Amino acid sequence: MYKSAIAALCLSTCVTGAMAQDLSSGKWIDLTHSFNADSVYWPTADMFTQTEVFAGHTDGGYYYSAYNFAAAEHGGTHLDAPVHFAEGAMSAEEIPISQLVGPGFVIDVSAQAGEDPDYLVSAKDIEAFEAEHGEIPEGAIVLLNTGRASLYPDRESYMGTAARGAEAVADLHFPGLGLDGAKLLVERGIGAVGLDTPSIDYGQSADFSTHVELMTNNISAFENVADMSELPPTGSMIIALPMKIEGGSGGPLRIVAHLPQ
Amino acid sequence: MYKSAIAALCLSTCVTGAMAQDLSSGKWIDLTHSFNADSVYWPTADMFTQTEVFAGHTDGGYYYSAYNFAAAEHGGTHLDAPVHFAEGAMSAEEIPISQLVGPGFVIDVSAQAGEDPDYLVSAKDIEAFEAEHGEIPEGAIVLLNTGRASLYPDRESYMGTAARGAEAVADLHFPGLGLDGAKLLVERGIGAVGLDTPSIDYGQSADFSTHVELMTNNISAFENVADMSELPPTGSMIIALPMKIEGGSGGPLRIVAHLPQ
Repeated sequence: MYKSAIAALCLSTCVTGAMAQDLSSGKWIDLTHSFNADSVYWPTADMFTQTEVFAGHTDGGYYYSAYNFAAAEHGGTHLDAPVHFAEGAMSAEEIPISQLVGPGFVIDVSAQAGEDPDYLVSAKDIEAFEAEHGEIPEGAIVLLNTGRASLYPDRESYMGTAARGAEAVADLHFPGLGLDGAKLLVERGIGAVGLDTPSIDYGQSADFSTHVELMTNNISAFENVADMSELPPTGSMIIALPMKIEGGSGGPLRIVAHLPQ
Repeated sequence: MYKSAIAALCLSTCVTGAMAQDLSSGKWIDLTHSFNADSVYWPTADMFTQTEVFAGHTDGGYYYSAYNFAAAEHGGTHLDAPVHFAEGAMSAEEIPISQLVGPGFVIDVSAQAGEDPDYLVSAKDIEAFEAEHGEIPEGAIVLLNTGRASLYPDRESYMGTAARGAEAVADLHFPGLGLDGAKLLVERGIGAVGLDTPSIDYGQSADFSTHVELMTNNISAFENVADMSELPPTGSMIIALPMKIEGGSGGPLRIVAHLPQ
């Protein structure tokens, strides 16, 4: 009886991508790289640093450890808030939670991206996914699996160069979301889109047109997302909570997926 | 029919505190203070700073904004990882997501704490809550509402002093969780405990015995949690995702509650 009850529930709610999941059971997958000295940052950005304040036994008889940290907003697994590329658009603390949590739609382009480090995920790729799995619903969290998470944090293989500074930018090579793909996702009214490369625009982009398209429509991007290979194309719930930096153009993101079983 | 189906589902799963919630509907409550120059830090800790890298129109024709930030791990709405007060215990990136997400049990002690800035939430307070709402289950996220969130970030009223430096520590006055209360929560096997003051030990603590009790048992604390007045005593789902700092003794926390309606 319970099985048919669940099916009935699902029929009444799941057609729009909604899901009733029991978060107290099932399985969690952490899609976040840890922040450390190797965390990947843009060649021109300040990297993550952690400095010890104290770590050891105190005169009070108890153990105590504490650290300071510093970084650019855009590095490691992080959020691009809409204001990163759209004047007056939402900053990090303004994004509604409902746009950061939603059913996961995971598009596997690892075969294509494996052959071409400058691969652009296209509207055609998204439509091929939809032909198999149904139309991506409003509020979905779309994740592009380029297969690059396994190269992180080796910057040479992950992003084309380990060099730092403005001169290194021309040598960046990694896949991204193409403008036609971004336009289709805006049309679908998704909550956010993420991928396992340093930027939602590909490494060779000069005009950042995908950022501009998404962010002028108040859609956020999640970058340097960790390994998605355990995620099914549909059926996960993605929860992506950024550090709540007032006026922030982005910042550290903790992104996790929940699977019902 | 659907109503009875939901009831049947709930009977099969809800007795242990588990809840099947549709995260795509219902209501989100953000329990996080934004990080800014006013964010509350311990008198001896580095405060949050944000510096502009660029904000404006670029030569490339697009708008762009980005910032750097720096802070102590323990300030604003943040996590105390077990290693903060227990040698060899879990650091920030090691805490399983299943200990950071769970049914919310919100204990309102605002009447008592309103009369006594040094109030200690006791085992008796927790037992009184349980007499009314049932025993707190394993994996629960327990939140103590002292009513102090409304004073944040005015340090004088929120924590007893706006002064900075080691001399100010003796003047800290704010409620916390008493040692007997901490022991009871450890016994219950909760996932984590949070409150709306700067520390899970009260302001006048010198031995930090509540931290030590929780953290030697690998239970995390959430501090400077924002306004809980919209939360019911039971029935919410708490999702608390910290910045994933490798080896971190804590760090910025984004904590949100989901209500089914």
